[in-house]
Amino acid sequence: MASTRVESVDFFYVAMPHIEDIGDGSQDACVVRVAAGGQVGWGECEAAPLPSIAAFVCPMSHSACHPVSASVLGEPLETPDDIRRISAKVRARSADSLQASHTLSGIDMALWDLLGRLRDEPAWKLLGYAKAYPKLPYASVLFGDSPEETLGKATAIRTKGFRAAKFGWGPFGTKDAKYDSDHLVAAREGLGADARLLVDAGTVWVDDVERAKKSLPALEAVKATWLEEPFISSALGSYGALAKVSGKVRLAGGEGAHDWHVARNMIDYGGIGFVQIDAGRIGGLTDAKRVADYAQAKGVTFVNHSFQSQLALCGSMQPFAGIEKDEICEYPIEARDVAYAITVERLDRGADGFVRLPEKPGLGMTVDPARFKPYLLDVEIKIGGRMLYRTPRV
Amino acid sequence: MASTRVESVDFFYVAMPHIEDIGDGSQDACVVRVAAGGQVGWGECEAAPLPSIAAFVCPMSHSACHPVSASVLGEPLETPDDIRRISAKVRARSADSLQASHTLSGIDMALWDLLGRLRDEPAWKLLGYAKAYPKLPYASVLFGDSPEETLGKATAIRTKGFRAAKFGWGPFGTKDAKYDSDHLVAAREGLGADARLLVDAGTVWVDDVERAKKSLPALEAVKATWLEEPFISSALGSYGALAKVSGKVRLAGGEGAHDWHVARNMIDYGGIGFVQIDAGRIGGLTDAKRVADYAQAKGVTFVNHSFQSQLALCGSMQPFAGIEKDEICEYPIEARDVAYAITVERLDRGADGFVRLPEKPGLGMTVDPARFKPYLLDVEIKIGGRMLYRTPRV
Repeated sequence: MASTRVESVDFFYVAMPHIEDIGDGSQDACVVRVAAGGQVGWGECEAAPLPSIAAFVCPMSHSACHPVSASVLGEPLETPDDIRRISAKVRARSADSLQASHTLSGIDMALWDLLGRLRDEPAWKLLGYAKAYPKLPYASVLFGDSPEETLGKATAIRTKGFRAAKFGWGPFGTKDAKYDSDHLVAAREGLGADARLLVDAGTVWVDDVERAKKSLPALEAVKATWLEEPFISSALGSYGALAKVSGKVRLAGGEGAHDWHVARNMIDYGGIGFVQIDAGRIGGLTDAKRVADYAQAKGVTFVNHSFQSQLALCGSMQPFAGIEKDEICEYPIEARDVAYAITVERLDRGADGFVRLPEKPGLGMTVDPARFKPYLLDVEIKIGGRMLYRTPRV
Repeated sequence: MASTRVESVDFFYVAMPHIEDIGDGSQDACVVRVAAGGQVGWGECEAAPLPSIAAFVCPMSHSACHPVSASVLGEPLETPDDIRRISAKVRARSADSLQASHTLSGIDMALWDLLGRLRDEPAWKLLGYAKAYPKLPYASVLFGDSPEETLGKATAIRTKGFRAAKFGWGPFGTKDAKYDSDHLVAAREGLGADARLLVDAGTVWVDDVERAKKSLPALEAVKATWLEEPFISSALGSYGALAKVSGKVRLAGGEGAHDWHVARNMIDYGGIGFVQIDAGRIGGLTDAKRVADYAQAKGVTFVNHSFQSQLALCGSMQPFAGIEKDEICEYPIEARDVAYAITVERLDRGADGFVRLPEKPGLGMTVDPARFKPYLLDVEIKIGGRMLYRTPRV
């Protein structure tokens, strides 16, 4: 008989006072706290917080549309397999609830943090790695509104000592190939010839292979390492067609994957060279680690996707911590204040420019609700006068 | 300048007083009402109602995580292309919100209903069909808890004059091949030798091809037309592997598809012979019609998925109404009272056993809120004391 069981799961919706309509995912967060055996663990969903909370507390619709809570609360939590069992249970019993993947992700991350604390081991060790290798961070920023602004951003990144940078979203891909080229040339000029330049199209071409092809000459000219998300994740045929002609510019994608099979399909049918997984969306560390294993077997490079808090960043890096050759990691450098208010620690770069995961138990980060309280939103969800959810007191 | 714009979108969460933990999706419904130009249209999401409502009203998180409302309210609505534009806008601006597909589905269905009323044409005609062909309904039921109970159900279905029936969920696939075989033999015995027998495994084997293979001899022995959802929708490799060895028993799947590319992938890589689309989940009639077009081009048979209300059934049949050769349609016969309380009309079978879509404008069904009022749940969602959603008065 298991004596340690999941006792409670709490959600905290935190946000900047003003949300801008730009591709910056660090403006709010859905933070999750799980308690068991006298400890708590913390995780974060890459998601709209309100529907994610709703997917946890909603009434059952039928046997494949349970609230996520029904498959988590009271479950045994003593071994990594217990977490995998909870994950599989949520998948089966909430199969008809799309938002459940977002909700599960934050819970799963918190469960690995919690289990690590209960067993006094880092999460990456519980996942099966003997060592957490240093990762080379790429500065992840949005394109400027003009090539001049992009040049300024790239120069600043170089000055800060980054050896890799990713530019994305903004106006890229919305105008003509010449305009995109101007931004790319500016980014390369600012970063210098030796830095790795990564480009994120932010699904702007949806599934239009011909339009995407027009971006390739400029990407090749600036020696871009990858073209990320030319299409939406489900447009596998478009990915596959573009991959055949993209040459040295490899395709990258996967952040939209909401279970490990979706990511696997992008490898098997989409021909991507880099699989980018957001642990806050795919189902947490459990599904992300399955992708890392599969990518290794297929010769594809695993990269974390993370554009949120320091807690989310730390969680996103656990699943490939022990893969030495998969060296680079996403590293947001324009995140908002709320993204630094969740944990006491930051994942700063060392003197050698590399980022190292904590060796401490769980995720190795200290979450202090008093720090994020200024950003906390008071949410109430009632059905028939009964309170299903109310923001916990901190 | 368009003079007709979407003025309001309202959600109604209706449910049976007691929800059973079985695979019966007719126990609740998320009904959507859209108003424009002095008319209203109605649709239904195949979804947990609470998170679906939350995805409509939630605050913006960033530029790819808007509430669905932001891409619908105030939009022009005068032509079918206006609906397609709204759909594309929701997809782009709510790309990082998985639940948005569920929410969009009910809205999109309501928009086609509404546009049909504004233009005095049936929805299937607006979708591009000259005629709505009669469809042969297959009685869709759950397996019995024992082979005897399955036999009883099958016999009753035959007595009611159905020439096709689908059995699914329940204990099927959870025990051994012998047990499954007993249920299948019972189903065939009850239906008679000439009826089409369809089998729904309800994703019970997740992605396990070897386990699924064990079901094939019994399925072949009873001449099953299809094996539905042996795996989850994203397990494309498993579908593809099983399709290669399934012989005369074709694979069916697609109800889990939440955009048209996901369904396309099941055709291109999963090798399915029947693509089953739930208009309440894939994004409404707009995405479902794209799948129908693609399936036609690929020689795959389109079938509606519907296990909810008469309104949802009517909506699910529009996208393939004009394809004469895709003859059979899903037809729930064990639905709960709430599923008949949304519309005044029912889609009853004619004397010849076929089901015909209404020739009246829009979906051709009359929704009367007074009918579903006894099942209506009072929901309140507040953030910071501000009411984001409250169940509308009927």
